[in-house]
Amino acid sequence: MTTATKSTERVRNGVDTQQLFGTLDLVKQQPELARFQFRATNRWIVGAHNRTTIKDFYGAGQVDTSRSEPFVLDAGEPAVLVGKDTGPNPAELLLHALAACVTTSLVYVAAARGVRLTEVESTLEGDIDLNGALGTETVYHRNGFERIRMTFRVRGDAPPDKLREVVARGHARSAVFDSVTQGVPVIVDVVAD
Amino acid sequence: MTTATKSTERVRNGVDTQQLFGTLDLVKQQPELARFQFRATNRWIVGAHNRTTIKDFYGAGQVDTSRSEPFVLDAGEPAVLVGKDTGPNPAELLLHALAACVTTSLVYVAAARGVRLTEVESTLEGDIDLNGALGTETVYHRNGFERIRMTFRVRGDAPPDKLREVVARGHARSAVFDSVTQGVPVIVDVVAD
Repeated sequence: MTTATKSTERVRNGVDTQQLFGTLDLVKQQPELARFQFRATNRWIVGAHNRTTIKDFYGAGQVDTSRSEPFVLDAGEPAVLVGKDTGPNPAELLLHALAACVTTSLVYVAAARGVRLTEVESTLEGDIDLNGALGTETVYHRNGFERIRMTFRVRGDAPPDKLREVVARGHARSAVFDSVTQGVPVIVDVVAD
Repeated sequence: MTTATKSTERVRNGVDTQQLFGTLDLVKQQPELARFQFRATNRWIVGAHNRTTIKDFYGAGQVDTSRSEPFVLDAGEPAVLVGKDTGPNPAELLLHALAACVTTSLVYVAAARGVRLTEVESTLEGDIDLNGALGTETVYHRNGFERIRMTFRVRGDAPPDKLREVVARGHARSAVFDSVTQGVPVIVDVVAD
């Protein structure tokens, strides 16, 4: 690993720091550019198999149509939960979203602070008592996760304390970490015919 | 669409109702079987590109190793958010998890209640002001979603009121809906060297 150029290199951790700082400066001048709306469409296929399509979103003052193709993601349930394992189950997908967000967030923080990372790996464990979701509880169980543990292993060219600080700042700034830990109001509308 | 056999068919909406009711009966007798732990491992690749691997989990009293291959899921950020669009971004992935969970939940509810569905589609919109996550706010913005709207279109062999009731029960029992709306404690550990 060569680290000699870390303080001057433009691309650090694969992040274009000039673009990153330029974006931050622009948003500071025009805060409304930071208003985003992410979108997804899900279609049921059969049983526990359903599929989400993700493409355009609103952000930086316009609908972003830069993706030529949508991302298509399947979900399912394993056999023990009466599915055919057509994809990760939704609870596992939540762990994916959380891991991805904290990781990207800490990688950007490191890039901005001049820390070159060589490894970031996280393992997540989410405890859930399905007596809630299954409706079989005799005592109260919430339907969702009771708790989630994330363990990060981080390596880079900074001392351990600095690396820990990068992870701390990363999860403190993560959109999904905040959404999952603090909760989000969800409005459900139904068109039935 | 033929609906004459709906009250007696074993497989409804692709859900094996005999297995579903058998599972519910078993869990009522042995509630500890409903204790699950879902797991994921994420590895950073470069920039906003990271990848989650999902395979085994704990549930029904044992580690479930029924999946022969892991699910491998990529994440990314679009260009406007300094990425290379290597996958959906983490906020979009959260929408996927939410849509998938409410959909599966309502499909199971419908199967259990004798409602045959022909179509379930949902569109999700999540509003977020990235001044929070970017750290550019001059007034307070949370980092996560301000709100999420889900609009379901549901069709089946039951009257609209019954279909609406199925959706309502579905989201009331959904593990991810509860996790996202009520919040989950997340513990973060770091190994840095």
